[in-house]
Amino acid sequence: MEWHNISDPASAELDRLAERYQLHPLHVEDCRHRNQSAKIEEGQSYLFTVMKVIRFDPQDELEIADLDIFLGEGFLITVIETDCPETEGLIERVQKATADTDRSDQKYYRLIDEIVDSYLPILDRLSETLDRVEDEALASPSPQTLATIFETKRTLVQLRRVMVNTRDVASHLQRTESPLIARDMWPFLRDVYDHVARNLDTVEVLRDLLNGSLDVYLSSVANRTNQVMKVLTVLGTIALPTLAVSGIYGMNVKGLPGAESPYGLAAVFGLIVGTTALLLWILKRYGWF
Amino acid sequence: MEWHNISDPASAELDRLAERYQLHPLHVEDCRHRNQSAKIEEGQSYLFTVMKVIRFDPQDELEIADLDIFLGEGFLITVIETDCPETEGLIERVQKATADTDRSDQKYYRLIDEIVDSYLPILDRLSETLDRVEDEALASPSPQTLATIFETKRTLVQLRRVMVNTRDVASHLQRTESPLIARDMWPFLRDVYDHVARNLDTVEVLRDLLNGSLDVYLSSVANRTNQVMKVLTVLGTIALPTLAVSGIYGMNVKGLPGAESPYGLAAVFGLIVGTTALLLWILKRYGWF
Amino acid sequence: MEWHNISDPASAELDRLAERYQLHPLHVEDCRHRNQSAKIEEGQSYLFTVMKVIRFDPQDELEIADLDIFLGEGFLITVIETDCPETEGLIERVQKATADTDRSDQKYYRLIDEIVDSYLPILDRLSETLDRVEDEALASPSPQTLATIFETKRTLVQLRRVMVNTRDVASHLQRTESPLIARDMWPFLRDVYDHVARNLDTVEVLRDLLNGSLDVYLSSVANRTNQVMKVLTVLGTIALPTLAVSGIYGMNVKGLPGAESPYGLAAVFGLIVGTTALLLWILKRYGWF
Amino acid sequence: MEWHNISDPASAELDRLAERYQLHPLHVEDCRHRNQSAKIEEGQSYLFTVMKVIRFDPQDELEIADLDIFLGEGFLITVIETDCPETEGLIERVQKATADTDRSDQKYYRLIDEIVDSYLPILDRLSETLDRVEDEALASPSPQTLATIFETKRTLVQLRRVMVNTRDVASHLQRTESPLIARDMWPFLRDVYDHVARNLDTVEVLRDLLNGSLDVYLSSVANRTNQVMKVLTVLGTIALPTLAVSGIYGMNVKGLPGAESPYGLAAVFGLIVGTTALLLWILKRYGWF
Amino acid sequence: MEWHNISDPASAELDRLAERYQLHPLHVEDCRHRNQSAKIEEGQSYLFTVMKVIRFDPQDELEIADLDIFLGEGFLITVIETDCPETEGLIERVQKATADTDRSDQKYYRLIDEIVDSYLPILDRLSETLDRVEDEALASPSPQTLATIFETKRTLVQLRRVMVNTRDVASHLQRTESPLIARDMWPFLRDVYDHVARNLDTVEVLRDLLNGSLDVYLSSVANRTNQVMKVLTVLGTIALPTLAVSGIYGMNVKGLPGAESPYGLAAVFGLIVGTTALLLWILKRYGWF
Repeated sequence: MEWHNISDPASAELDRLAERYQLHPLHVEDCRHRNQSAKIEEGQSYLFTVMKVIRFDPQDELEIADLDIFLGEGFLITVIETDCPETEGLIERVQKATADTDRSDQKYYRLIDEIVDSYLPILDRLSETLDRVEDEALASPSPQTLATIFETKRTLVQLRRVMVNTRDVASHLQRTESPLIARDMWPFLRDVYDHVARNLDTVEVLRDLLNGSLDVYLSSVANRTNQVMKVLTVLGTIALPTLAVSGIYGMNVKGLPGAESPYGLAAVFGLIVGTTALLLWILKRYGWF
Repeated sequence: MEWHNISDPASAELDRLAERYQLHPLHVEDCRHRNQSAKIEEGQSYLFTVMKVIRFDPQDELEIADLDIFLGEGFLITVIETDCPETEGLIERVQKATADTDRSDQKYYRLIDEIVDSYLPILDRLSETLDRVEDEALASPSPQTLATIFETKRTLVQLRRVMVNTRDVASHLQRTESPLIARDMWPFLRDVYDHVARNLDTVEVLRDLLNGSLDVYLSSVANRTNQVMKVLTVLGTIALPTLAVSGIYGMNVKGLPGAESPYGLAAVFGLIVGTTALLLWILKRYGWF
Repeated sequence: MEWHNISDPASAELDRLAERYQLHPLHVEDCRHRNQSAKIEEGQSYLFTVMKVIRFDPQDELEIADLDIFLGEGFLITVIETDCPETEGLIERVQKATADTDRSDQKYYRLIDEIVDSYLPILDRLSETLDRVEDEALASPSPQTLATIFETKRTLVQLRRVMVNTRDVASHLQRTESPLIARDMWPFLRDVYDHVARNLDTVEVLRDLLNGSLDVYLSSVANRTNQVMKVLTVLGTIALPTLAVSGIYGMNVKGLPGAESPYGLAAVFGLIVGTTALLLWILKRYGWF
Repeated sequence: MEWHNISDPASAELDRLAERYQLHPLHVEDCRHRNQSAKIEEGQSYLFTVMKVIRFDPQDELEIADLDIFLGEGFLITVIETDCPETEGLIERVQKATADTDRSDQKYYRLIDEIVDSYLPILDRLSETLDRVEDEALASPSPQTLATIFETKRTLVQLRRVMVNTRDVASHLQRTESPLIARDMWPFLRDVYDHVARNLDTVEVLRDLLNGSLDVYLSSVANRTNQVMKVLTVLGTIALPTLAVSGIYGMNVKGLPGAESPYGLAAVFGLIVGTTALLLWILKRYGWF
Repeated sequence: MEWHNISDPASAELDRLAERYQLHPLHVEDCRHRNQSAKIEEGQSYLFTVMKVIRFDPQDELEIADLDIFLGEGFLITVIETDCPETEGLIERVQKATADTDRSDQKYYRLIDEIVDSYLPILDRLSETLDRVEDEALASPSPQTLATIFETKRTLVQLRRVMVNTRDVASHLQRTESPLIARDMWPFLRDVYDHVARNLDTVEVLRDLLNGSLDVYLSSVANRTNQVMKVLTVLGTIALPTLAVSGIYGMNVKGLPGAESPYGLAAVFGLIVGTTALLLWILKRYGWF
């Protein structure tokens, strides 16, 4: 069994292999055009699979690289489309782990399985981001929270796309009765399908919760505005009697009651404090604070 | 008929049983990896079922434990994955209740049935939480309400996942024509399916109502802000004439009408009271209070 | 043909009938446990149907009672689970209306038909509530409106559940080729299905409109807050020049222009009125009122 | 070929025709009960179709009238349920247009086709309403806009119901191999189906856009409130220094700096203008206007 | 092989071709009525396809032109319905590119493929618009942003419609076993289907993100309003002690403490500054700024 690993899809080696194994021109073209969807197609004498390797790049952005796999009778061709350390590491890992077998279908299964398993830590990380965003939305909503919500939404939308297509691949693999895959591999392929389906499920759950956290953000901000308004109104309530009474006693009009009396000041203060207390009591009764 | 109950999936006993009953390595592996989805798979000579036992832990968080069941000709193996009193109690209960029969399919049905029935009090509790949340959202929306809404949403999302998978298990059981389950059990399995379907239905209804209560929360807060604004405006309306008139009569300008007259004060007060009353009347006419 | 009507599912008569007609224990148990879903199940020699009778109780809450029906060769058993005047009246009505026939399938059809028809006035009433709620949400949104929206939502959620299950019953009846129902009844059963489907349709429409009215409520409140803010700002605009000018002329500072002049007062008033008018004109230009 | 057009479903003529052509009692009853859903049913020797004729009444409300059609070997019966000028005009139009043929299936197709085509101007009108509503929601959101949105929503909900049912009718017609419709009509019936499907599509698009315009309304109002708040705050900012400084210099306290000096007034004004300018500059820096 | 390209569907040439190749009158009519949906129909001896050519017109509005294609044994007829430079350019391009082959099915595939590929830059442009809108919604939400969101929504709704129909065309082509298309074209048609499906996927993703950006807009505005309110309240807090204290000391009442003392002014200022500082400290403690 031969495993041809091609790091540069533009290389002439791919053409040589295409000729040797009679690969369909459209499939070779697919290897050379990035951003294919994950998919599986049955060629004349081989299975052509496009898988997606995902990682967060140093700038915390999602990077999705294509890995093309040709599984044939006695050969396995992997084409790394993008220069991605993740993909190369993954292929090396699988090559080592399956060094003791000469069956191409087992190597193929391991590849698919490893790729699907590699999605889990990414989902965990998004789940943590979501936890953080929820706490922020409740406790201290800020434009930064909004921006994170939106970025996470974008990431989830991209992930969902990959997951849906990968599930279709896994579902095809589970149903296929291709002679290239021996019968004893079937339960394992079913296992892969289960994992992908669960991943997709997780993505949907995260999306659902994320939308919820946007609603919570809005509600939380509305609640805060309500609190601010109440403070403003309470402030206004405290100020009102003082301003009104002192304004009145500041008028250049004759005969203000008590203006000439030595107890006038105390009476005026009493009036101010009394009306303020009354207003605050009313607000308190209506449950403002 | 033998019932092997294994409390520790890591124990060697599981391996011995696996060998004796020819359990598929993937199924044994599933027992040892937590957080499988509820599922059912037909092995060579047995049925492998993963069920979920759910309880609220003392911190009021949902705890979901796995229970793996192998149903074979003349044997039943249960594997308790997590150290969960709920699961152990449930198995004891079923063992006692089915002590009088030697049919493994009946014991198996009872297990499934008990697990499905155990979801009901959890749904009832969530339903009560929802009632409380709705009342709060209408009467006194607070950030705490928002937090409860979000927690309940998370719980429902988890529950839904369990329910959907359990329904698939029940649906499979209902359709299966496995020789391991005698024909007279069929109506009972159908009954289990009905219960699970109704549970799932309840979860969907609770989710729907919960989303509604978030909208109500937002609307309720918006309404309160509106009320606060009105109070603020009414306060402003009361203050305005007093401040304006007293400000004008406080000016060090000559010739303010009535400033020198003994009836001036009364006229000024009349002016203040009159304009205030007019403004309040206008607000009342437009239905502000 | 015998029609056994049992008002108390706990009575021993049900057991006697179960023995005589060989009713399945699960079905008898269903009669004794309330809150079954509406459903239909084919027994050995009979059709077991659970239907829901709905009414608004005096407190305006939805009350859903179970009516269990066994249709067999030459017999019809109805079990009234809850003590509900609605159900009893309905059965009496059907018994009278079908007194002239001895066919159990015709009586059975009439029962189902009457139950399905009884949903219509309930939907009409909800539709009226919705109309009222919409008008309120637009014209005078209040917390009471919100509470009504939420209650109606709950009611619709319950109704939907009943309708969906009843539709499944009707759909089963339409497709069944049970020998218990003569061929000439088929168009009538199809008619029942059409009615249920239309009812369900109405429930969906009402739900859709109800969600819309919640959005309208929120928008309406937001609009009102906007109006209140504008009033507050216009008030502030009217107050500002008076307060500023009178404050300035109230200062104990020498040389205020015109303070000593006999035309000072007129000039000051002119200043106040002029700046107020200018500000109001500016607000008007920007379309504030 | 005979075309019987009955304008009053209560008339005895319908009974005579029912007897003559052996129409099923349920179908005759359907003709006499308004508000049937659009539907098609195959009778013994005829096709029974209920179609909906829609128009805006003078009060701009949607009016939906039923038109029942029996298509049989050599006869066509149309029953106009409601006294609706639209329906009568439509039937006359079709009768004239098909005067040259004696095939009942061609007349039948023409009727269906005309009805389906008559939905188009109604959709166009709703589309125009939507355009207007969108512009209003963006430029000058008012409660009137909300009311129009809600009314349009109701109309679309009703239309959708009619369209869905009509599509089912068209789909049935397209699939039916009824001997009453000659093979050369099939492409034409497929054409009808295409038109209905496109109409339904348009309704869905309008609904989607309408929901969007409600969100835009809410966002637009929120934006306006934000603007009003800013104006209020700017007003407060302009007023603050004047009020504070003039208040301080209005105190009956000795030793206010510059109170006795001839340049005091200028200094005080400078202070007021300076702090106001500073505050406005700060607001401007943070992008408030 | 003959390729007839008709630029004016009203021309008599189309009638001549219709007669010569026995095109169905409904198809010819379709060519003459604009705004058909993209669709494919199998005629007696030919395939009739309606495709949509899309471009942004100079006013940045979406322009959708119909291109009708008849593929028959040895002939290809293209009908350009609208006077659209895009469509003409496209046809010329395909004619040149397929000048070396005489197979009509290859030319046909190339046409479809080119049209589908031409959607990509339009989607890219919308994706860029969306990026810009999101940034605006977060950083500086304005009514202009809202208007752009709504316009983009409309465009996406239109595009989605075209894509869905085009996918149905591609799906039909992929499944068809029409003798007009040789077997070696099948993988290529599958490729076309994949491209359309991916385009549709992108449209859905853009719609999802756009709806999200509307929510972000609303949340962002709410957040800003909250900020403005805080500034207003802080302003009020700063103003309050100054106005109250200066108002009190401005009263014409005897015995104000310190009014006569030389240190009175300092004490009053101390009081003002002290209470202001206290209030600000309180606000700061509650996390207002």
